[in-house]
Amino acid sequence: MQREDQRAMNALRQYRFVPDVAPQALSSVLISTGRTQVICAVSLDDSQPRWKKIQDITGGWVTAEYNMLPYSTVPRKKRDSAGKVDGRSVEIQRLIGRSLRSVMDMEALGERTLWVDCDVLCADGGTRTASITGSAVALAIAVRRLMRQGLLETNPMRQLVAAVSVGKLEGEPLLDLCYVEDRDAEVDMNVVMTEREEYVEVQGSGEEAVFTATEMTEMLGLASKGIRELIAAQRRVIDEVCPAQS
Amino acid sequence: MQREDQRAMNALRQYRFVPDVAPQALSSVLISTGRTQVICAVSLDDSQPRWKKIQDITGGWVTAEYNMLPYSTVPRKKRDSAGKVDGRSVEIQRLIGRSLRSVMDMEALGERTLWVDCDVLCADGGTRTASITGSAVALAIAVRRLMRQGLLETNPMRQLVAAVSVGKLEGEPLLDLCYVEDRDAEVDMNVVMTEREEYVEVQGSGEEAVFTATEMTEMLGLASKGIRELIAAQRRVIDEVCPAQS
Amino acid sequence: MQREDQRAMNALRQYRFVPDVAPQALSSVLISTGRTQVICAVSLDDSQPRWKKIQDITGGWVTAEYNMLPYSTVPRKKRDSAGKVDGRSVEIQRLIGRSLRSVMDMEALGERTLWVDCDVLCADGGTRTASITGSAVALAIAVRRLMRQGLLETNPMRQLVAAVSVGKLEGEPLLDLCYVEDRDAEVDMNVVMTEREEYVEVQGSGEEAVFTATEMTEMLGLASKGIRELIAAQRRVIDEVCPAQS
Amino acid sequence: MQREDQRAMNALRQYRFVPDVAPQALSSVLISTGRTQVICAVSLDDSQPRWKKIQDITGGWVTAEYNMLPYSTVPRKKRDSAGKVDGRSVEIQRLIGRSLRSVMDMEALGERTLWVDCDVLCADGGTRTASITGSAVALAIAVRRLMRQGLLETNPMRQLVAAVSVGKLEGEPLLDLCYVEDRDAEVDMNVVMTEREEYVEVQGSGEEAVFTATEMTEMLGLASKGIRELIAAQRRVIDEVCPAQS
Amino acid sequence: MQREDQRAMNALRQYRFVPDVAPQALSSVLISTGRTQVICAVSLDDSQPRWKKIQDITGGWVTAEYNMLPYSTVPRKKRDSAGKVDGRSVEIQRLIGRSLRSVMDMEALGERTLWVDCDVLCADGGTRTASITGSAVALAIAVRRLMRQGLLETNPMRQLVAAVSVGKLEGEPLLDLCYVEDRDAEVDMNVVMTEREEYVEVQGSGEEAVFTATEMTEMLGLASKGIRELIAAQRRVIDEVCPAQS
Amino acid sequence: MQREDQRAMNALRQYRFVPDVAPQALSSVLISTGRTQVICAVSLDDSQPRWKKIQDITGGWVTAEYNMLPYSTVPRKKRDSAGKVDGRSVEIQRLIGRSLRSVMDMEALGERTLWVDCDVLCADGGTRTASITGSAVALAIAVRRLMRQGLLETNPMRQLVAAVSVGKLEGEPLLDLCYVEDRDAEVDMNVVMTEREEYVEVQGSGEEAVFTATEMTEMLGLASKGIRELIAAQRRVIDEVCPAQS
Repeated sequence: MQREDQRAMNALRQYRFVPDVAPQALSSVLISTGRTQVICAVSLDDSQPRWKKIQDITGGWVTAEYNMLPYSTVPRKKRDSAGKVDGRSVEIQRLIGRSLRSVMDMEALGERTLWVDCDVLCADGGTRTASITGSAVALAIAVRRLMRQGLLETNPMRQLVAAVSVGKLEGEPLLDLCYVEDRDAEVDMNVVMTEREEYVEVQGSGEEAVFTATEMTEMLGLASKGIRELIAAQRRVIDEVCPAQS
Repeated sequence: MQREDQRAMNALRQYRFVPDVAPQALSSVLISTGRTQVICAVSLDDSQPRWKKIQDITGGWVTAEYNMLPYSTVPRKKRDSAGKVDGRSVEIQRLIGRSLRSVMDMEALGERTLWVDCDVLCADGGTRTASITGSAVALAIAVRRLMRQGLLETNPMRQLVAAVSVGKLEGEPLLDLCYVEDRDAEVDMNVVMTEREEYVEVQGSGEEAVFTATEMTEMLGLASKGIRELIAAQRRVIDEVCPAQS
Repeated sequence: MQREDQRAMNALRQYRFVPDVAPQALSSVLISTGRTQVICAVSLDDSQPRWKKIQDITGGWVTAEYNMLPYSTVPRKKRDSAGKVDGRSVEIQRLIGRSLRSVMDMEALGERTLWVDCDVLCADGGTRTASITGSAVALAIAVRRLMRQGLLETNPMRQLVAAVSVGKLEGEPLLDLCYVEDRDAEVDMNVVMTEREEYVEVQGSGEEAVFTATEMTEMLGLASKGIRELIAAQRRVIDEVCPAQS
Repeated sequence: MQREDQRAMNALRQYRFVPDVAPQALSSVLISTGRTQVICAVSLDDSQPRWKKIQDITGGWVTAEYNMLPYSTVPRKKRDSAGKVDGRSVEIQRLIGRSLRSVMDMEALGERTLWVDCDVLCADGGTRTASITGSAVALAIAVRRLMRQGLLETNPMRQLVAAVSVGKLEGEPLLDLCYVEDRDAEVDMNVVMTEREEYVEVQGSGEEAVFTATEMTEMLGLASKGIRELIAAQRRVIDEVCPAQS
Repeated sequence: MQREDQRAMNALRQYRFVPDVAPQALSSVLISTGRTQVICAVSLDDSQPRWKKIQDITGGWVTAEYNMLPYSTVPRKKRDSAGKVDGRSVEIQRLIGRSLRSVMDMEALGERTLWVDCDVLCADGGTRTASITGSAVALAIAVRRLMRQGLLETNPMRQLVAAVSVGKLEGEPLLDLCYVEDRDAEVDMNVVMTEREEYVEVQGSGEEAVFTATEMTEMLGLASKGIRELIAAQRRVIDEVCPAQS
Repeated sequence: MQREDQRAMNALRQYRFVPDVAPQALSSVLISTGRTQVICAVSLDDSQPRWKKIQDITGGWVTAEYNMLPYSTVPRKKRDSAGKVDGRSVEIQRLIGRSLRSVMDMEALGERTLWVDCDVLCADGGTRTASITGSAVALAIAVRRLMRQGLLETNPMRQLVAAVSVGKLEGEPLLDLCYVEDRDAEVDMNVVMTEREEYVEVQGSGEEAVFTATEMTEMLGLASKGIRELIAAQRRVIDEVCPAQS
């Protein structure tokens, strides 16, 4: 088997982080991985979410929203309208939110809500993992900026987090699937992992097929490799855009 | 650590399958596991779903819907109403649908849609895994009935499938978590597995914490043990309600 | 004319009350009458409804919701979804609410809301009257339990209430119509009556036909007979599940 | 007891029918009874409703919609908006539709839908009964016009139908309640009756109280008296606007 | 070119103002212009709108709603229902609101909201301009009544405002277009102007065509002429219904 | 008066067109004007809109959608969700659609729908006019690409179209208002004009104030100047991205 773009089975697609594409946001990043592109932007809301206030729980919150722009796919994807709901989007934005919150200290964040918006500009597979990886960069820059402005004393983001997809196609394990690979894959697994190589989420699914424990181990190994590389890249862009202050 | 109901760390809760609680359905099962109870019912629709027709794809489909009855929790849970959507329900019903379809041969099902409805009567943790385990029983009985009626020639359900939750609480791996265990768990993992011990879905998440590869292996081992036991029980109730014909 | 199940023109269908089918509810009853089955459950909310608070009216409230489970009919009935409303359900739940409130002393109930949920498990005619009759049982048990818990001093439920359908089919008056009788009936009348044989609601309608005063009198006589029998049965099950304390 | 406008217990309020207030409608009537005013308009749709086509049932249909204009009450009533539903309106429009259909021969109407819209311009009690009485006039004029245009051969409206409210206030039976009487009444009953004095609908309800068989008989007697008077008035205005052709 | 109703290119259609058609409203006017008829009604709400309160801005507000009654057109126009929105109505009611607010002193109005509802009874072109012209009359009467009741000390309505449509059809400029003229027009322009002949809104659009500066000047001249005439008529009806007090 | 960015009263903000930011779209442009940035993307749908098919009208269609991304403003703007509608967005997308269609020959487009999506990335005033100007560029490139692919024989876009805002602030006429200027302006006017200097839309509004004919003439003069400059820039970028073929 030969991959469309000639890369090795265990290679990531070419990735890139373009910072501050949305000037009104507290921070923003355009992440691209292969043809997939997602705008990840963080907005600040100076209050707790309603449910925390009602239940009288201290600390802040991080909420994610995921949306595919209509022209991110061919054919064009209709916008969600009144009365319609996209189950897949709901599921993905819940995953992004959980992933980001796993590395955040809500007490240290204070009574604030950070909104993380992920808008897919171009979809070619792996939009949910790109959203997590890009959002983590935007979030890290956002909290550094809040620290510079004196709004935060300690950094509430304990470590970085990134995500990648792995799968099995024609019996072979594969890293970072593009759309056609994902469509044809027998197994599709999304792995979210921290800088310290702990799992945050593992979601493996084989709608058309099933998979064995051995196959799972192989795929998880590939995922670790890819995530290590992504986290190193995240680190570089964050330090460049907003160097940590001593 | 002592579990609330005194059972061992690696023990399932007491389970029971009551068949045909909903007489108008093609088949139905009330599954209970501990205090959790879910009505799983299969209805027949003699046509393909609209999206299959439009795309001109042959074969049938299995669609699941998941709903918590208002009195399944304290305090009472509001019904979904016009304009509101419950993200968690959407995510769960997509999981149930994928799990059931993984063991179904859509061609053998013919141009039919089987609707699988899961209504939670009492919620005490594990409602999504109970829904999968109960629905598989209802689905197996449903297809046997269609075969008896001469509507199907071969059995489109290739094997059974069941699900269970595992987790880590106070550092210890745990099988089949009740609500309070689930609420306090550091890691929560739902495992869907077939009769032949292949994975269908593995969804591990640690919103408050992260987990290591070793912990994942331990939890997966517990899940296998539980699912083997559940599948044996499924087999018994299916054969009792609707014996396979030779 | 011969009725499908051989019963007399003035006979009720076989009925049964199964208590506490929904363990998280304050009280619940599965009522069955012929093939029709409805889950009636009462949940407690320790506050007044919003509209009472705003208008500064003292006392509690009883609110009913009615819903047909998708597998209660053939073909399967779609769930109400965002943007769709089922006019018939709205009308029925308003009737159930009014009927229950007619026998409740809202001052004695205190600043509480009792939610009464009626979910139809199997529909074969008379689901609205079964809902009223079953809900009255669940409500009576609920208030007795609140009294035992010391939350209520006096019983806010002044007397029992039950309901039955009557109709005219092929010119003959008929008690307690099943689905096919109801579909073919020239007149359909729902009667809600208290233990003291006072009317709460009388809703007679002849969409395809009209009816005379004499026919109405005959139908109301049949209804009284049926309701007396139902109230005696309600009394028995309530005393059995939760005996009145002296 | 003295009624606000000095009329007798068994007297109707002053009523009036103004024809053709909505020039684009096939026919329309502004009915006023006391201060209550409702615009009733009939529009023609040259096709069957979708559900009749799908089920392949011959004949036409009459559908009613009921709406309170925002300025018909003090304080102003918000318009129904996306995602909100007014249970009371749904119930009323179902009643109006059933009442009108009870006197229509759907086969004779042919494959047409007549839409009957009732918009309340001023609300002072009895808007649902005024809607029925006014709509019957508009419908009668509409079918006569269709006959003149040669679109109908025989008159599909078999007879007239009208409605009135009766009730019990301070123990006394009362005809045609205005808003304050209705608000204070112990029993409220809406009666729909045909020209031949047959019942179409009888809806009696005592939310705060209950009522006896004797009281019901008294109220029904008052209702008959009022409806006879209204039908005579309907007859006059119909013949004036669109005389029957010989 | 000859206009359908023989009037001159620069002539208004016959107009009429019928006051107080909706007795529960603070004031109301049925405006007719040619066949077009709109009910304009003002309701009083003794509080500021929510957004003013939240932002802590003093003074009152005027909000407009525009709606076409279903029988105002052939074929019948469906009512807006849950989940559906009519973009055109939204645009029109925003225009009406802005037009009325341009002549109101919000401070002098005090902490009140005046709701202006425009319901189209018969649509034959120019419903948005008729809504503005009619609403200004209703609003002027409303504030005079509030002054008589001693609720307002000074008149918050600084001057009158009216609107008219102009257009270009077969190359000729035209005043006050009826539906068929509007449908065929190459350019359609709505002009809102005050008593002192200042512009409030100018909305010119040529969907099928474009227009030159010269043509615009011609059309604006026609509009001024028409609006002067309408404002004189508004003045007469306001003084008649509710003479200014000295 | 001094403008924030020091530019002259009759000067445009700095503008830029970045082509093909959304690779899956048929064509796309990121237009920036000052701080305002809008993504304009064209997607192809190989069929007529439903309403054209039903009415059996030949030719294609151009539909626009306008949306503000949540992070385009401070504070963050909530996404439109089920049951909510943003009147302003509806009005703007109708304006964009009309403007683009005014220069398109629907017959020459054939039975196709071109979807034009405008997503605001950063909002600082003038988003609707930037959307029109940017969309016209994307549309011109789109139709040239369809011609190259041999799908179109003649160019259906007759000429270019662009838009700009003008206003009056502290009595002075002003070109191309940024957000704070727009907020404080006494008059706000949006002008849409073609390459041949014909008007397509003129929308002038003074919510807080009114304006005279002379002021309107001044503002229209400024608008012409700005639009000529924008159209020259549009021409350059179109020819660069997709040179016209001889």
